[in-house]
Amino acid sequence: MMKQGVTAKDVAKLAGVSQSSVSRVYFEGASVSAKTKEKVLAAAKELGYRPNEFARSLITNQSKIIGLVMKGVQNPFYPQVLKLFTTSLKKHGYSVLFVYTNNDEIQKEDIEILFNYNVAGVVITDASLSLSVTEDFIKYQIPLVLFNRKIDNNKFYSVCCNNYEASKRIAEFLLSIGCTKMIYISGNENTSTSREREKGFSAMLKGSKVHYQKYSSDYTYEGGYNIACEIIEEKQLPDAFFVANDIMALGVVDALKDHQIAIPNETKVIGFDNIEMAAWPTYNLTTWEQPITEMVEETVKYLLNELEEYSGEAKNLEIDGSLILRKTT
Amino acid sequence: MMKQGVTAKDVAKLAGVSQSSVSRVYFEGASVSAKTKEKVLAAAKELGYRPNEFARSLITNQSKIIGLVMKGVQNPFYPQVLKLFTTSLKKHGYSVLFVYTNNDEIQKEDIEILFNYNVAGVVITDASLSLSVTEDFIKYQIPLVLFNRKIDNNKFYSVCCNNYEASKRIAEFLLSIGCTKMIYISGNENTSTSREREKGFSAMLKGSKVHYQKYSSDYTYEGGYNIACEIIEEKQLPDAFFVANDIMALGVVDALKDHQIAIPNETKVIGFDNIEMAAWPTYNLTTWEQPITEMVEETVKYLLNELEEYSGEAKNLEIDGSLILRKTT
Repeated sequence: MMKQGVTAKDVAKLAGVSQSSVSRVYFEGASVSAKTKEKVLAAAKELGYRPNEFARSLITNQSKIIGLVMKGVQNPFYPQVLKLFTTSLKKHGYSVLFVYTNNDEIQKEDIEILFNYNVAGVVITDASLSLSVTEDFIKYQIPLVLFNRKIDNNKFYSVCCNNYEASKRIAEFLLSIGCTKMIYISGNENTSTSREREKGFSAMLKGSKVHYQKYSSDYTYEGGYNIACEIIEEKQLPDAFFVANDIMALGVVDALKDHQIAIPNETKVIGFDNIEMAAWPTYNLTTWEQPITEMVEETVKYLLNELEEYSGEAKNLEIDGSLILRKTT
Repeated sequence: MMKQGVTAKDVAKLAGVSQSSVSRVYFEGASVSAKTKEKVLAAAKELGYRPNEFARSLITNQSKIIGLVMKGVQNPFYPQVLKLFTTSLKKHGYSVLFVYTNNDEIQKEDIEILFNYNVAGVVITDASLSLSVTEDFIKYQIPLVLFNRKIDNNKFYSVCCNNYEASKRIAEFLLSIGCTKMIYISGNENTSTSREREKGFSAMLKGSKVHYQKYSSDYTYEGGYNIACEIIEEKQLPDAFFVANDIMALGVVDALKDHQIAIPNETKVIGFDNIEMAAWPTYNLTTWEQPITEMVEETVKYLLNELEEYSGEAKNLEIDGSLILRKTT
């Protein structure tokens, strides 16, 4: 198995010092005498030795790896999130261990993997977290950020778009253009994003005594397409659909087109996220832009601060986005 | 920095043995006396110690991490690839270190990161590899697979769809439905996929004395949209477009729709990949399905075999896909 060339052990042997001394030469914060350092560097040069991150982590008890847990890779919003995180973290010398989960709730085994690699921190995107798993983050003082999700227990830091305010603005806009019969299509009911988006939408409509009907879906294109077909077949066509994310909204638009229903004349559609496809000419979807770059930057900033000095600060950071008007309203 | 609880050092101290002995207790292949083992396990139990992957990797000189290098996360084909790899590797106890590269050619620093983490193997998807980087894989005997790309030097294993044969079949199909004026829209010229797809297409047409024009694009939606607009404005509308990947083909379809050109009556469009969106009712794109699950499985199989016993086998494995007929032809 010893196949990747020279190890610290080889260097230690040649230098006549302990393996631990070799490690200490290479990693900051570790003390080592000038004489030992000289011997080690000479041996390392002779053998062509390069220190590795694993050895480093045994000294610092921490790797330069951030775990990123993700579920909905089929939703273009998340690959974009992955790209931004990888790029931002790399600038600070961190790499991304990617964990795909196909369950709504993150499994203990997924978190075990991350802990086994001594991850410096963890970002969880579109998956929920059971209490049995969360305790370990606090126990081991591993910074955790919930990205685009928040949980109620106030034990963790979360970074979201201000979904409640955004949805109030969306309702306000639809009221201002004369819509009086509305439908909200939710994402998965167990997500904070879907609940907050409904809450803001509902609060603003209540103030204007305008009613809305709610249909439940699942944050997928197919989910949006199918629920829209049902609504059309039940002859429940509203003045406007507020759809909890863009990828579902594209499904709604396609279902309406398939039924020869003219957008925005016969009904209007608003999504949420502003994924790239929302701007494609075939969709031209009015939507709420999530401030994704700022959300990623704030997440990375928090992680780096916690790595500098752990505080365990818990807070729901909410960042404003903006309404992007296109041709579906 | 010592914040993640108990270390092997603490266990060693309490057990009265060396740190190296502690490691040896936990990782297979290392010899340790029954007495030492007993002392270590007792101390570990008392302190609540859990061994970690980094310590393991210092013994075996190899981690349970596979590096996955990717560029085009905006193309839905690649998030799907990421999902399949993560799922398949997890079954075998491996995790994915994700490297995003925004350059066509992988940079030496990206590979350095992977080597620093003692990755067990590497998969490179849509990015090319310079010779200065490739040598290190051979030197350190780290298995490497080029996924959906092949290079000419025959030093590495690659897993692709049989692009040449697929494109011959595509040309054959278009000839069979009477197309005589054709356009091939290429992806980035430096990719083997785009070159092979043109080669097969060209070879079959040549046999039938049918000509085609080539337009160069870049494997993005915008690239496909823009080049199709140019073609339409130059009044070069062909009987059929063969577009080197689906995401570009969707751009071509949208450009044609925006110019009120009827598909498939006035012109036809065929893509390549069979991404989920190709089946969306608004597109209904005829395309070539890449056997992505099989491609991922073959890649993982090769990596595991090489990890069992390194052979350095170099080969271009090409797997057949199939033509998916929808409404754009």
